[in-house]
Amino acid sequence: MKHIEWKDHTLFMLDQRRLPAEIKFMPCHTVTEVCEAIECLAVRGAPAIGIAAAYGMVLSAEHCPAESDFNQWMTFDSRRLAATRPTAVNLCWALDRMEEVWSRADREEAPVLLLQRAREIEEDDIKRCRAIGAYGSELLPQGARVLTHCHTGAIATGGYGTALGIVRSGFAAGKVSMVYADETRPLLQGARLTTWELMESGIPVTLIGDAMAAGMMQDGEVDVVIVGADRIAANGDVANKIGTYGLAVLANHHRLSFYVAAPLSTFDPSTATGADIVIEERDGDEVRKFGGQLIPPAEVPVRNPAFDVTPHQLITALVTEKGILRPDYAESIANLLK
Amino acid sequence: MKHIEWKDHTLFMLDQRRLPAEIKFMPCHTVTEVCEAIECLAVRGAPAIGIAAAYGMVLSAEHCPAESDFNQWMTFDSRRLAATRPTAVNLCWALDRMEEVWSRADREEAPVLLLQRAREIEEDDIKRCRAIGAYGSELLPQGARVLTHCHTGAIATGGYGTALGIVRSGFAAGKVSMVYADETRPLLQGARLTTWELMESGIPVTLIGDAMAAGMMQDGEVDVVIVGADRIAANGDVANKIGTYGLAVLANHHRLSFYVAAPLSTFDPSTATGADIVIEERDGDEVRKFGGQLIPPAEVPVRNPAFDVTPHQLITALVTEKGILRPDYAESIANLLK
Repeated sequence: MKHIEWKDHTLFMLDQRRLPAEIKFMPCHTVTEVCEAIECLAVRGAPAIGIAAAYGMVLSAEHCPAESDFNQWMTFDSRRLAATRPTAVNLCWALDRMEEVWSRADREEAPVLLLQRAREIEEDDIKRCRAIGAYGSELLPQGARVLTHCHTGAIATGGYGTALGIVRSGFAAGKVSMVYADETRPLLQGARLTTWELMESGIPVTLIGDAMAAGMMQDGEVDVVIVGADRIAANGDVANKIGTYGLAVLANHHRLSFYVAAPLSTFDPSTATGADIVIEERDGDEVRKFGGQLIPPAEVPVRNPAFDVTPHQLITALVTEKGILRPDYAESIANLLK
Repeated sequence: MKHIEWKDHTLFMLDQRRLPAEIKFMPCHTVTEVCEAIECLAVRGAPAIGIAAAYGMVLSAEHCPAESDFNQWMTFDSRRLAATRPTAVNLCWALDRMEEVWSRADREEAPVLLLQRAREIEEDDIKRCRAIGAYGSELLPQGARVLTHCHTGAIATGGYGTALGIVRSGFAAGKVSMVYADETRPLLQGARLTTWELMESGIPVTLIGDAMAAGMMQDGEVDVVIVGADRIAANGDVANKIGTYGLAVLANHHRLSFYVAAPLSTFDPSTATGADIVIEERDGDEVRKFGGQLIPPAEVPVRNPAFDVTPHQLITALVTEKGILRPDYAESIANLLK
């Protein structure tokens, strides 16, 4: 099943909010609908929202009215897409790749060229994930019990996955014996998506609460932690799903390797350190409610940062499609992006 | 509102599973119903289940048939109550206090004497909690922002609370500016009970996801962590709600004080270290479901330990009704229990 599909001038995306209870595609006919799909997390995962935004720019070009200035129109929509979510840099990376096309093309030929570029971005991402998987698999011990957080699989990317790409490659190589999936409150991407995707692929998975990871490490039931990333600063600091930083501290305390898997599109050399990364704070009702059901007293104040920043000191290695980066990250990242 | 009430030969307990949506009391007419109330977590919190078990033994004595051997009957029911939950030692502690009575009393006078003892246990617990609060409050800095886990308040005890008792005393002394309550998956005692109890008491509280605590510490938004305990071993290792150990590691990493609040009834000198504490593993559906709704694929394997063990090395101090214990805990605990 393809989770992102372009058909009849419409972008169809698997609605990740409904999984695994319902497999339903959300059609986006306009760039506004793509913005909404990203904002409401119908599509999520740093690489996947980059791909969605790329197709969004195709829709934008197709709908540019004859009387409008093409560049102004495209710039406006590109900014709208970029503003949907502030933390993952893949979004801006993909929009920059699209701008290379629309800023140079005739407006008549732009839609076709942009569609070609969006497809390239999508297909490249799958290749990148496979390469990440192959490199990352080399890092795994035989019989590895992998702890992961949030969801970094096929539907969070063009396909295959980043951290779950390593799990896939490692499992294919006979090296992975168990994946422990944190449920990842508040939106339960681990419980809903990681378990579902791994079970579909026949990879052994056990669901745990976020607060159980520490005890599992203490009991020697985890060999390695692998997570994805939403933005990696020039010094190697990593913004990723809230809870990642805590796992990094815990891995460090238990002397476990802590790997971050991400394609080059997640690296942002213009962000010097994690302190410069904007952390999205989402609606408190994501914490207060589930399935429309209110858990605490309705008026309770809530914090709901969607991400946290893991300092590079806690990261054993960064796994990219171009190979494995080790400290000093400032140097290894600069060399990689040269 | 009293959350545990004895009336007309019946034990009425506030059903903690329904809070805060519904305030409903569960009547227990028999010791079997008390066992069920403890097992299903209608009553929870180490001191509170000790009190419930004490009243359960009153019911047992009242229902002893004339033809039965009183000691055999009482021993049987005491063991049933002790077996309901394996980790919290307050349960066995309270049953031992009750046995002192029924093992010596005439069977005719036993019910009255046992009711008197159960009431003493309950009222003593409130006094103990107030003393814990007073001692613990001394440890707090001015304007303290306290992070707590699970629920350790009035309804988890005889009244007032252990960790929340310190919060209450600290707040009354003008020292607490904010309480961050971890939601505490899977059963959301923090989201449901801690927020509700603190809001009812006018103490400022903010609800966070379990995986958000690390980021809050990193951002300097937490001054001190205070938790309760279900059993404290002779060496100071603490069994408490799953997630406690992770918080202790995180507090240590961020050089924050990590305090454990517990009455003497939670100390178990017969357990040498945390390694000897039995950790209850509960039904996986507690993790699979959220507010009754199934989240992951139904067949996903799950781990659901209800507790974890925090090694004494990570604990800044133990706060008891007799004062504050510091390392070496083996020594300070032995002196305390002498």
